[in-house]
Amino acid sequence: SGGGFALWHALRELCGHHPRLCIALEVSAELPDAPAGGDGGGGAVEALDPRWLGEPVRAALLPTDAYLTNKHGYPTLSRRHQAVVSALFTRDVQVVLHGDSLHTPPQPPLPAAPKPEPSAGSDGKDGQSAPSRPHPLEPYREYISYLYRKLPAPSECELAESGYRDYLQSPLQPLADNLESATYETFERDQIKYDTYQSAVEAFLRDKVPEERVASAPPVVLMMVGAGRGPIVAACLRAADATGRRMRMYAIEKNPNAVVTLQRRAEAEGWGDRVTLIASDMRHAAPPEQADALVSELLGSFGDNELSPECLDGAQRFLKPDGVSIPQEYTSYVAPISAAKLHAACAALQDGKDERTHFETPYVCKLHSVGLLADSQPCFTFTHPNRPAGGDALIDNRRHGRFVFAARDPAAAACVHGFAGYFTTRLYGDVTLSIHPPTHTPEMSSWFAIYFPLQHPVLWRAGEPLECQFWRDGDARRVWYEWAVTGGSGGALTHIHNCGGRSYDVGL
Amino acid sequence: SGGGFALWHALRELCGHHPRLCIALEVSAELPDAPAGGDGGGGAVEALDPRWLGEPVRAALLPTDAYLTNKHGYPTLSRRHQAVVSALFTRDVQVVLHGDSLHTPPQPPLPAAPKPEPSAGSDGKDGQSAPSRPHPLEPYREYISYLYRKLPAPSECELAESGYRDYLQSPLQPLADNLESATYETFERDQIKYDTYQSAVEAFLRDKVPEERVASAPPVVLMMVGAGRGPIVAACLRAADATGRRMRMYAIEKNPNAVVTLQRRAEAEGWGDRVTLIASDMRHAAPPEQADALVSELLGSFGDNELSPECLDGAQRFLKPDGVSIPQEYTSYVAPISAAKLHAACAALQDGKDERTHFETPYVCKLHSVGLLADSQPCFTFTHPNRPAGGDALIDNRRHGRFVFAARDPAAAACVHGFAGYFTTRLYGDVTLSIHPPTHTPEMSSWFAIYFPLQHPVLWRAGEPLECQFWRDGDARRVWYEWAVTGGSGGALTHIHNCGGRSYDVGL
Repeated sequence: SGGGFALWHALRELCGHHPRLCIALEVSAELPDAPAGGDGGGGAVEALDPRWLGEPVRAALLPTDAYLTNKHGYPTLSRRHQAVVSALFTRDVQVVLHGDSLHTPPQPPLPAAPKPEPSAGSDGKDGQSAPSRPHPLEPYREYISYLYRKLPAPSECELAESGYRDYLQSPLQPLADNLESATYETFERDQIKYDTYQSAVEAFLRDKVPEERVASAPPVVLMMVGAGRGPIVAACLRAADATGRRMRMYAIEKNPNAVVTLQRRAEAEGWGDRVTLIASDMRHAAPPEQADALVSELLGSFGDNELSPECLDGAQRFLKPDGVSIPQEYTSYVAPISAAKLHAACAALQDGKDERTHFETPYVCKLHSVGLLADSQPCFTFTHPNRPAGGDALIDNRRHGRFVFAARDPAAAACVHGFAGYFTTRLYGDVTLSIHPPTHTPEMSSWFAIYFPLQHPVLWRAGEPLECQFWRDGDARRVWYEWAVTGGSGGALTHIHNCGGRSYDVGL
Repeated sequence: SGGGFALWHALRELCGHHPRLCIALEVSAELPDAPAGGDGGGGAVEALDPRWLGEPVRAALLPTDAYLTNKHGYPTLSRRHQAVVSALFTRDVQVVLHGDSLHTPPQPPLPAAPKPEPSAGSDGKDGQSAPSRPHPLEPYREYISYLYRKLPAPSECELAESGYRDYLQSPLQPLADNLESATYETFERDQIKYDTYQSAVEAFLRDKVPEERVASAPPVVLMMVGAGRGPIVAACLRAADATGRRMRMYAIEKNPNAVVTLQRRAEAEGWGDRVTLIASDMRHAAPPEQADALVSELLGSFGDNELSPECLDGAQRFLKPDGVSIPQEYTSYVAPISAAKLHAACAALQDGKDERTHFETPYVCKLHSVGLLADSQPCFTFTHPNRPAGGDALIDNRRHGRFVFAARDPAAAACVHGFAGYFTTRLYGDVTLSIHPPTHTPEMSSWFAIYFPLQHPVLWRAGEPLECQFWRDGDARRVWYEWAVTGGSGGALTHIHNCGGRSYDVGL
């Protein structure tokens, strides 16, 4: 209830957000109304009030009077209660049974073991006990155990991700650093992503060379900027084969270790003269001709956060005037979240320096113990190639977004620990990739979400809007984000996080 | 206006309470309504809205249209404007004149100097200027200068205090530490305090020995616990002389350096056998007889904060069953304040350790750049001797106070940076000492106030009450305070400061 959350919020504030303070929720016979439907992706978890999903719920008290009775006399739970308990299991919440035994099933759920003789050293009390008689709450335990066994087995993708849940990672700096081989390997495991790139290139090739001109048209020229160890080069070759279009391509890669692997792969897979390797930073490369399409996979969890805009702006000089970029467009999304665990993880990073630093850094993270408090909103969009109308005009990749969020449950207050960030991209035509929950590409594992912390969590008062602002800013050497809660919720305000890029930036 | 303050609050939050962010107030022709009368002690400063008094106001813009015209045609200010400008001067706020010259006094306020010849190197522009002609705003400047000269000269007490304004001092730990000679000297400079003690002892002696029994009554026995270098011993002797009562006294002092001074003073002033020195900690002293009155000066800026209750509870075994304590009673007071400067001073104390520590410590401080946001309320009271009804019952010196403050100006929001603490004491009968502004003992300089910080300043929303709680807690070795904003103002809450005495305590 609102009263329960207000009480929790007050207690936590008074205790100074002590990390050892946890919650036991009471799952009563009457459940509060479900909040308005979210933007999907949550599955069973949607049964839980999102305000609590991000809070440190350790136990759920399930009284016996919350059970119904099935036709055989056994205790059972309503569908909504079942969904709640299943959701709690996915969050590793301990279920605590309590109350009087209100059900007497016709037969004991477990065969009664023969009563053992009291041991020699036992006192009178022990002698009177009947350790083999089932606990009076055994039928309830058995039912909960049944719900647990009924949980769907985690998918391969979920299994792979489980070790990363709620673990904060610093975003990659692919321009400044060379990726390690293991990082490429992790990326390349995601076949869904490369299949989608192949589909996009196929669609492009079919548009570029209509069926009737397949024989006569000159080869289509593709330019892969940031080829890595070649997975998308291979996808392009497969796309050319699948569509029967003639194609040759250039693969530009700056990382010398990746170039070695790329060369071996070219030999092993017989890429021959269809692929020309250019071992160079794409910002300084000088390929011998312009391309019909610039292919890249430079997107980060927040779309533009690994500087895809700056890279592609620099690389579009390789592109013919009518050339296209794959991806053609990408958009980031933000949503306010309850995420006490992530906030505590930020606080635990404190190292005695400026305590703001770790709260002013966005983290790549497999969001798990997180409650989505409002539907996400589109944040920043970039379109490529980016040729400003003025011709000679400089490209301005700075952005500013102002968002007014409406709470999913307008009658309930919640605590905002920061923002979740996602992205979608249109690779070509209607071929898209997305980690935005409502449109997430099924089974794609390549990107986790991004978490923008708030140093001091904000109480989002019931019934009020929450206004937030995000900025993408930069100078000649670096790019960064700034973010703040700027009002709307009864004067709730935060400082502008990462003002001037003081705590976090991405180097150009 | 409320809008102006809200804007300032939002800007400051967005800038993360940056210490270089300051305010220029516009002193317009129409001044906002004066807030409800406070509890005195502020003088001219009362003309200013208390919400701004604690904020970093560096400049005041005074437009020419805020001036009236006197009968001679000179610009002048209304009484309220004069009070505001005078108050600004006491806060070292720079006054900025602006606007068109709207007054033409009949004669120039300064004789025009002869126009100097343009210097050899001057260009045409310089040649055209008339540097000696008074600035068009000169009549306004002259008037402001007149207001400044009209300010009352600071009193001796104010002069002595001026170096301590807004300077945070850690409270004394007189039980654990021995005071230095310079500290005693500072104390002893305050004749008002010792005169008041003398009055209290005189009143006690007259009550104890009625006029008709002066000759026959046995000598009254006084026991001075914590005699220091003897100023109150001397006051007691003067009281005995002034009333003609026979008296002998014991002076207990633990500080060996003070005892030496005390012995010299006894010899120099011929105290003779009227005063027996006992060089011992009052907790372990064993004087040869019980006293009619226990005299002490153990009070701190917050009354009980230097452990007067614990000391006097221990010393009351020296007291006859009908004996009295001088002081008989003392009460602390608290009030929410706006005090950005003090808060910034706390923040500047950060030393890379737990950042809470310096915000969970009360500081003795000559409050100056401070706005009193509500009338203060009595906090903790102690009465001596303290003989619980049960006889053998243990004395419990723990206290808890819950306060609901109403803003002086209910229509205006304000920022609470912490609490001011004061005390009053009834020494004997109706003889009192007070540093509580409404009843402050005139010209007494002995105590500054105490400042309880809030780590994260709280926005006190217009029209809402502010609930705060204070605790005095302790264990066998130490005593401490805890404090928090616990609601009332739109859910405004802070953590409980100094929980369990983790950041600050006074050793027993």
